[in-house]
Amino acid sequence: MLLNDDRLFPADPVTRGIARRLYAGIRDLPIISPHGHTDPRWFAENKAFPDPATLFVKPDHYIFRMLYSQGVRLEQLGIARKGGKPAKSDPRAVWKLFASHWHLFRGTPTRLWFEHAVSSIFGVNERLTPANADAIYDIIAGKLDQPEFRPRALFERFNIEAISTTEGALDDLKWHDMIRASGWGGKVVTAYRPDSVVDPEFEGFAENLASLGELTGEDVFAWTGYLEAHRKRRAYFKERGATSSDHGHATARTANLSQAEAEKLFAKVAKGKASAEDADLFRGQMLTEMAKMSLDDGLVLQIHPGSFRNHNASLFAAFGRDMGADIPRQTDYVTALKPLLDAVGNEPNLTVIAFTLDETSYSRELAPLAGHYPALKLGPGWWFLDAPEAMLRFRELTTETAGFYNTVGFNDDTRAYLSIPARHDVARRCDCTYLAKLVAEHRLDEDEAAEVAHDLAYRLAKEAYKL
Amino acid sequence: MLLNDDRLFPADPVTRGIARRLYAGIRDLPIISPHGHTDPRWFAENKAFPDPATLFVKPDHYIFRMLYSQGVRLEQLGIARKGGKPAKSDPRAVWKLFASHWHLFRGTPTRLWFEHAVSSIFGVNERLTPANADAIYDIIAGKLDQPEFRPRALFERFNIEAISTTEGALDDLKWHDMIRASGWGGKVVTAYRPDSVVDPEFEGFAENLASLGELTGEDVFAWTGYLEAHRKRRAYFKERGATSSDHGHATARTANLSQAEAEKLFAKVAKGKASAEDADLFRGQMLTEMAKMSLDDGLVLQIHPGSFRNHNASLFAAFGRDMGADIPRQTDYVTALKPLLDAVGNEPNLTVIAFTLDETSYSRELAPLAGHYPALKLGPGWWFLDAPEAMLRFRELTTETAGFYNTVGFNDDTRAYLSIPARHDVARRCDCTYLAKLVAEHRLDEDEAAEVAHDLAYRLAKEAYKL
Amino acid sequence: MLLNDDRLFPADPVTRGIARRLYAGIRDLPIISPHGHTDPRWFAENKAFPDPATLFVKPDHYIFRMLYSQGVRLEQLGIARKGGKPAKSDPRAVWKLFASHWHLFRGTPTRLWFEHAVSSIFGVNERLTPANADAIYDIIAGKLDQPEFRPRALFERFNIEAISTTEGALDDLKWHDMIRASGWGGKVVTAYRPDSVVDPEFEGFAENLASLGELTGEDVFAWTGYLEAHRKRRAYFKERGATSSDHGHATARTANLSQAEAEKLFAKVAKGKASAEDADLFRGQMLTEMAKMSLDDGLVLQIHPGSFRNHNASLFAAFGRDMGADIPRQTDYVTALKPLLDAVGNEPNLTVIAFTLDETSYSRELAPLAGHYPALKLGPGWWFLDAPEAMLRFRELTTETAGFYNTVGFNDDTRAYLSIPARHDVARRCDCTYLAKLVAEHRLDEDEAAEVAHDLAYRLAKEAYKL
Repeated sequence: MLLNDDRLFPADPVTRGIARRLYAGIRDLPIISPHGHTDPRWFAENKAFPDPATLFVKPDHYIFRMLYSQGVRLEQLGIARKGGKPAKSDPRAVWKLFASHWHLFRGTPTRLWFEHAVSSIFGVNERLTPANADAIYDIIAGKLDQPEFRPRALFERFNIEAISTTEGALDDLKWHDMIRASGWGGKVVTAYRPDSVVDPEFEGFAENLASLGELTGEDVFAWTGYLEAHRKRRAYFKERGATSSDHGHATARTANLSQAEAEKLFAKVAKGKASAEDADLFRGQMLTEMAKMSLDDGLVLQIHPGSFRNHNASLFAAFGRDMGADIPRQTDYVTALKPLLDAVGNEPNLTVIAFTLDETSYSRELAPLAGHYPALKLGPGWWFLDAPEAMLRFRELTTETAGFYNTVGFNDDTRAYLSIPARHDVARRCDCTYLAKLVAEHRLDEDEAAEVAHDLAYRLAKEAYKL
Repeated sequence: MLLNDDRLFPADPVTRGIARRLYAGIRDLPIISPHGHTDPRWFAENKAFPDPATLFVKPDHYIFRMLYSQGVRLEQLGIARKGGKPAKSDPRAVWKLFASHWHLFRGTPTRLWFEHAVSSIFGVNERLTPANADAIYDIIAGKLDQPEFRPRALFERFNIEAISTTEGALDDLKWHDMIRASGWGGKVVTAYRPDSVVDPEFEGFAENLASLGELTGEDVFAWTGYLEAHRKRRAYFKERGATSSDHGHATARTANLSQAEAEKLFAKVAKGKASAEDADLFRGQMLTEMAKMSLDDGLVLQIHPGSFRNHNASLFAAFGRDMGADIPRQTDYVTALKPLLDAVGNEPNLTVIAFTLDETSYSRELAPLAGHYPALKLGPGWWFLDAPEAMLRFRELTTETAGFYNTVGFNDDTRAYLSIPARHDVARRCDCTYLAKLVAEHRLDEDEAAEVAHDLAYRLAKEAYKL
Repeated sequence: MLLNDDRLFPADPVTRGIARRLYAGIRDLPIISPHGHTDPRWFAENKAFPDPATLFVKPDHYIFRMLYSQGVRLEQLGIARKGGKPAKSDPRAVWKLFASHWHLFRGTPTRLWFEHAVSSIFGVNERLTPANADAIYDIIAGKLDQPEFRPRALFERFNIEAISTTEGALDDLKWHDMIRASGWGGKVVTAYRPDSVVDPEFEGFAENLASLGELTGEDVFAWTGYLEAHRKRRAYFKERGATSSDHGHATARTANLSQAEAEKLFAKVAKGKASAEDADLFRGQMLTEMAKMSLDDGLVLQIHPGSFRNHNASLFAAFGRDMGADIPRQTDYVTALKPLLDAVGNEPNLTVIAFTLDETSYSRELAPLAGHYPALKLGPGWWFLDAPEAMLRFRELTTETAGFYNTVGFNDDTRAYLSIPARHDVARRCDCTYLAKLVAEHRLDEDEAAEVAHDLAYRLAKEAYKL
């Protein structure tokens, strides 16, 4: 069997017994997925997924970056060069290449997610090997066409109560409209991600700004019009269910300039004359502006800072963004967030959720900040930190200072649709493991741990994100 | 029962058995509390503590910052605004508000400390809930008036062999004098904390300097007089039992200027014309000056760096210092301490104890430094790091490089008097847990572990602090 | 017994059982020691080691830095002052001084290494104490003269398949030639360590450069001649078995200047007119130059950055380099390595191995980088991080992102010859402990764990270093 019922539980029998009981109380709770990158088109069109390689291998950063690190070229995976024709590739050949490198994923979360998905969804209960790769391909491919493996059927089977996609500020959200128009009952909401019209260094920023103006009818080259355009887009998103905005900046820098300073800065930005420092300051100012808009429209503000995007220059030139070469870097929060927190940190009705790729900030900065400011909550382990060991460290490094109730449950943050149940299951098991240790060491009573487990698996995400 | 005898011991039966045996050998050792913030007036006057809320809730940063983070206003806790009238508050109402938020402290050390205190001191053996809050309030309130719950009686019941308070350089130490004059045998000493006359950016620095001059009869606006004034105050403190000085700077920066440079710098400081950089350099210079004075008078030098004080601007404006918004920040030691260490680091008779709020420095900087320099010792986990998980990390991250004998035992560092036995008990249990793991894994023999446990619980603090 | 068969294995019986089985499968594998500092003269001359103190105490940084931190002066250990006469010291007295401080090493890896060596090599099975120090000295001293305790006999007894020493670029490698000429079959190779002719701030850099010119017949004061001289020396080292170069810079900074910029920079360096920034840039440029040479000659590039060398100024003045006062400091990799990675990071046939003294970079920077770039691999825990707890953290912090196969097995990195089997044994046991936990928690199957254990103990080092 690929999936042992006790997976991820600690070996000590007493602790494992507690973990099992805690987990039994939450394993069947619906999934709240408040932040992620699934494609709303899937739910709108409800078409069959094409083939196992396109489903599991090609869209998954965790998979193709590991293969690339060991000498597999992206072309071999059928990933297209920028501006080139769609790469031709035989999905079965990609699958077999993947299978022949499966040992690379030993000890990684990809192993857990993949085996959970193929086992629980497709009934595959053998470890992937070069020898059985063809047979497993056939099993999966044979099911993808069946109605019960279409996106909406899987949504129901996954017991998803609500899921948020993420769309850019200029997106027309037509797939979301189509989902709603369809009468299907699945709750799929969007989130407002305005990086392309907030970051002066984003590719095509000037054109993006012009599009924003067209979409909203505002004079977006003037500061007040620009802000008003954001307000309108936020309202547009909110009408399609959005309960949050999301911001992926290189740092957590925030600013709170005077009206006059902000106008002056924006004038440079709007003319394309912003220096690197101007651009950085502007991004920081916009976080605070977004927080202020949240005071009015109630959207939750998510800050996802600290990634050095597209670190591999030649890969970026050849293949474009999001090719697995985003590398975390050290991230300061204490001074960076202060302007925003000085402005709105004491607002009890605002929710700002800070994420990090830099674990060193958990105990030193983020837990002390979230354990003080009413507006600030701590997001779960993100990206490289959404794996079992890292999740345990998250709890160990934050709970003693911030408690459980200044955190917001789990985010799967994925575009790998079939991995969603697995990711939530891993998070639930890891939280039960952490709680079981507290109980076994008489630091928490089991009835309380059961309540906390439920909160971490379900309630906190639902409430923090208003889903 | 609130207190399980095995609390904080690892679940594995063999390891737990070892931990129990180690702990049995040290549980009844007297408490050495070499650094903390209890009020000497308590011991001087020996009056009854007023009520449960004033005793447990209002003075405890850990408690009110957590409540504040979840929307409780400080006014609701009876905390007075700056310059305002003493806040009116019903202590019973504060207590019930606290009880209704008790779940927030799950997984935090506050939970452990509070339950240890109410159980072992007041015989309360139920978990605090809104339903029993009144009854528990009554139990505690009913005992506070009794003689055996007065400060001195508790001191003896707590088995405190020696405790150090911390007073500012300008303090007249009258309570300490009163304790000594009373004939009571409890050993309560002071520590010299001159931040208010060392830090040019401290509120009221100029007036503080003037007061220092008046107190000492020195011309404190000249460099030599200023240093002499410190020497006199140190002697004054030492006569009242002080064995240490303590310094809470924003960074660990030290400096070792020439006589001429130091005079020139001080001239600016004394005239109130120091820039931010001057002020920082001056604080660094004074750490080295204090270390040099320690060579003469034998006081132990404690450095507590790395806190961004009063991070919440509006809270600071409304309520003043120490309102729970001190946030740790990244702290360098390798370059920062070098001037001081170059000056006095090789002195075998000097003890400089470095603390940190930044765990990343444990294995990278502090353990390697303390494992080399004869004068440097490593202080225990401080503030947010004085909790079980953090204490284990402290040992895991420092022992392999610095051993046990370049550390100095435990500091409770608290003004929450009733939590002192609990804090030392938690530290002792965590050290036994760490040692039991070494024994169970055959990395240390049990007889040696027993000796180390004793050293960590008692001897190292007593010797390092000369108590 | 000093050595328990289960040492370093987790206490939980199930997990321990798995660890035992995994370890049984690898305990007798030959040692691959791809990076270290043993003296090739030992193997060339095959003379007896002089006495226990000279063998165990005097050359071991871990030992004398700890003794120094507790007030033992280096003179007491017979360590000579710079330019002074060889220190006179009675080795037996040094040994007894060491024995009287043996408790300092509780919980440190020195304890494990020393006891493994004296027990398995000399049959000493008592814990060192002041009381038995003389007797143990006699046992060891009595054996050192015997043929089976000479360097080559120990090499064979240690089951060393290959070992690399490290020599400076100007070394004539005569001991390596002598080893080869001797007909002895032990595989002892060298590694190219050019710091003294690459770092403009190295003591004697100008003379070193001149020597490099003499050795190679190149005009090393011109950029092309300088590079050609390196190529020749690398070839010379490669003929003596070298498969790697090694670079110990203060930071991980790399650069990739244009030909013209590099020439201009080198002109300043060659004239001794380089500023601190020039020197730093030049070191960074040379890492990239070395990587480019590796593309041609196949040497593996090792980067060992992040140590503040000779931190203790007065000790450095009195005793010179390598006196235990090298202190790790925070090290950036994300921006530092980018120029080199942009130049050669996508080369699948190049191997660059990055090490760190700063654990914070493991999960944040190094695992994400090594989990993406084909050319980059992650070196094992180094220096203060080559101890059990640190080794487990290394796996916990890197595996989930980089897997096992972007790491390169173990380096003992030592000049303490007799500790080599112990160090490899500790590493093997720690890896088995980590793998056993994965198996016990159903995150990896035991047959796979056995394969990984073999890879980590043997294959990865052999293949990465081409030994």
